[in-house]
Amino acid sequence: MANLITVGSVAFDSIETPFGKAERILGGAGTFISLAASYFTKPVNLISVIGNDFRERDLTMMQEAGINTYGIQQKTDEKSFFWAGKYFNDMNHRETLETQLNVLGSFDPIIPDSYKNCDYLMLGNLSPAVQQTVIDRLPTRPKLVVMDTMNFWISSFLPDLKTTISNVDVLIINDEEARQLTGQYSLLVAARVINSMGPNIVVIKKGEHGALLFYYGQIYFVPALPLEVVFDPTGAGDTFAGGFIGHLVKKDSFSFDTLKEAMVYGSAMASFCVEKFGVEGILGLTTSDIENRVKQFHSLVS
Amino acid sequence: MANLITVGSVAFDSIETPFGKAERILGGAGTFISLAASYFTKPVNLISVIGNDFRERDLTMMQEAGINTYGIQQKTDEKSFFWAGKYFNDMNHRETLETQLNVLGSFDPIIPDSYKNCDYLMLGNLSPAVQQTVIDRLPTRPKLVVMDTMNFWISSFLPDLKTTISNVDVLIINDEEARQLTGQYSLLVAARVINSMGPNIVVIKKGEHGALLFYYGQIYFVPALPLEVVFDPTGAGDTFAGGFIGHLVKKDSFSFDTLKEAMVYGSAMASFCVEKFGVEGILGLTTSDIENRVKQFHSLVS
Repeated sequence: MANLITVGSVAFDSIETPFGKAERILGGAGTFISLAASYFTKPVNLISVIGNDFRERDLTMMQEAGINTYGIQQKTDEKSFFWAGKYFNDMNHRETLETQLNVLGSFDPIIPDSYKNCDYLMLGNLSPAVQQTVIDRLPTRPKLVVMDTMNFWISSFLPDLKTTISNVDVLIINDEEARQLTGQYSLLVAARVINSMGPNIVVIKKGEHGALLFYYGQIYFVPALPLEVVFDPTGAGDTFAGGFIGHLVKKDSFSFDTLKEAMVYGSAMASFCVEKFGVEGILGLTTSDIENRVKQFHSLVS
Repeated sequence: MANLITVGSVAFDSIETPFGKAERILGGAGTFISLAASYFTKPVNLISVIGNDFRERDLTMMQEAGINTYGIQQKTDEKSFFWAGKYFNDMNHRETLETQLNVLGSFDPIIPDSYKNCDYLMLGNLSPAVQQTVIDRLPTRPKLVVMDTMNFWISSFLPDLKTTISNVDVLIINDEEARQLTGQYSLLVAARVINSMGPNIVVIKKGEHGALLFYYGQIYFVPALPLEVVFDPTGAGDTFAGGFIGHLVKKDSFSFDTLKEAMVYGSAMASFCVEKFGVEGILGLTTSDIENRVKQFHSLVS
């Protein structure tokens, strides 16, 4: 069985959507990625950092889901990363109400010895310097390094970001960020520019409009499932990444065909995520829940 | 061979995009629809109205493409419909700079006797009262009536629009308009509300994000092809409708399978449309041009 390391924040979110409010619920890219990936491969070796306010029950839940939390440092003198945001009526736009970096501000990722045999590395959205540190600290390079990022790092840490991008195999990025990073409006051209920065494989997420996979000049598209209700989009992109990397690890392959399947599994996981608040939508799923959802994706385009 | 009547404006457009400007070029929903449909079925029996400023060479070009222009009334005392618009950098938003209704203001659609044996009717975007008049004036109801509309009629002529919608089989509408018409953000729910207004089949166009077909509770999605350059989106929706109806007429079928194929042909035609100014992108295509484009759509999701 191939090994997976995931890296990303484990945090609290306060979220307001047109459907309701949730205060200080479990969130963070590392959490969504690892929970989604845990349906495909176990253990998911998570590297993260939490503060003194973190709840034991959240850690226990993650462990029960198959996440190895040994790589989560707990800092007793600081609080966990906290984000508060509000979604507008169309659910495609949100406003950040508050960001408290807390423990993330000085995050020095430590890789436990037991994690060091890493085949697949999933770098969730974080400072590109921290992402690079994880790559540098692994004794051998993983077979595949996948990286997510966001607009903040493109605007304010571009040189660092470009360095890290040059060292990964797959960049997962959303459409607006791909345009911002490359200065190209056409996603086709943007993907080509990203290829020239390093990654041979580019995944461009388009939110409710699906996702594109660019693989050595070939393109694959997976739509988003039309849903009755999008309850809370928080974490959907991370959940996509978790399902995506999880499927690759399960198959221990990153051929074009496996990557295509991974796009569908990632999208299926994301579709569960948005149906409920926070991580709730991706807890307690069965294999047949996931397979039925995947079938819906296939029938949508067949 | 099944017969097709198309209805819609034949007009002049002045268009400004980030790539350039074009003054008083041939446009209009009826033009785009009929040119696109002419690749699938001939003749395309067009019903429209033009003014004294219309150019003989444009009429000749349309005739040579296989459009029967006998149903185009020419009014010698008025000018043709004119629209001027400007696209913003992202090409998804445009501003209308000028609309001169001219001959469209008093358009009384006359159906030539030679057109009256109509199997398929494609009502392009027009006043819903005019669309209804065409339905009323046909001696027998076509096998399939397809209708396109736009936000203006939803905002200002809702009762008329609802009457016409209740009399058609297929409504083609874009995502924003579907939301405006139904008050529902979820396109899944919006399509269901439209079903309850009359049409059993609903096509929701999402511009650069593809199009959805809702067919008696089943859903099919066709992505838009990622393109290097979107040069001018004007007429893309009409061109989609033309390719869509053209394929149905060619196959003389509106089964779910044929409708799915029609969605792909419509999208393929629209992808040619946006690559050049005005109708230029959909002139002079070969069957293999179209089939190759269709193959690209299939490979994108297979």
